[in-house]
Amino acid sequence: MKSLGKHLLAEYYRCDENAINDVQKVEEALVRAAEIAGATVIGKSFHRFEPYGVSGVVVISESHLTIHTWPEYGFAAVDVFTCGDHVDPMRAHEYLKEVFGTQNATVETILRGVLNIPDLRHKPGGSCVSGNCTDKRIR
Amino acid sequence: MKSLGKHLLAEYYRCDENAINDVQKVEEALVRAAEIAGATVIGKSFHRFEPYGVSGVVVISESHLTIHTWPEYGFAAVDVFTCGDHVDPMRAHEYLKEVFGTQNATVETILRGVLNIPDLRHKPGGSCVSGNCTDKRIR
Repeated sequence: MKSLGKHLLAEYYRCDENAINDVQKVEEALVRAAEIAGATVIGKSFHRFEPYGVSGVVVISESHLTIHTWPEYGFAAVDVFTCGDHVDPMRAHEYLKEVFGTQNATVETILRGVLNIPDLRHKPGGSCVSGNCTDKRIR
Repeated sequence: MKSLGKHLLAEYYRCDENAINDVQKVEEALVRAAEIAGATVIGKSFHRFEPYGVSGVVVISESHLTIHTWPEYGFAAVDVFTCGDHVDPMRAHEYLKEVFGTQNATVETILRGVLNIPDLRHKPGGSCVSGNCTDKRIR
């Protein structure tokens, strides 16, 4: 079945609580995971909550990676959504699972954009139109 | 079944091609959708591609909304992931479906963070630790 993208929904149980509560480490891990998958990072937004927890997203030319962590439960919900044939979202998942010291994980793959078009393909390149990209932190 | 979050995976077919190719309109729509769902927006990152297409994410205290569009196919893939009881992701989906002139849509709801913990709850508030939030555009 041909689709525009693959979307991995991963659940990480019994993670290292400190690792998933450190916003800088979580950000570095997600960017590295995107690179390992073969993706091109074009934007990111990470946030740490009080008293604990991190939310973050890495926008890639090929779609996105997201994470939400609950250190109090040792739990993280990770999404890796990639388009095109040159990226492998499973590699990002395998890396992240390791880096967060995950003891149990589940992963589900969902195809996105299953269209009945003979020459279905993801948009070429990943060139961002200058001046039309926005990254804003809301205060 | 008790879970930390609800994740809606929506597929929008036969959308208004202009609406899903306008990065500013797409950004405004996702922010408005977050508000309609009852969520608190804390960050965002939107990008327009050449020759067409938009990718964007809105980080909310309650998780995230994302969109990836293929105007050439009249298609958009939308995710609305929310945590806590005071937000309704379906309201965001209903709004977005309308605003993009979607003629056919599918939506799937997946529970995230189904943990065997009696008093399971999402982190309170949405307070962001100053200095630990990052939003960056990669050039």
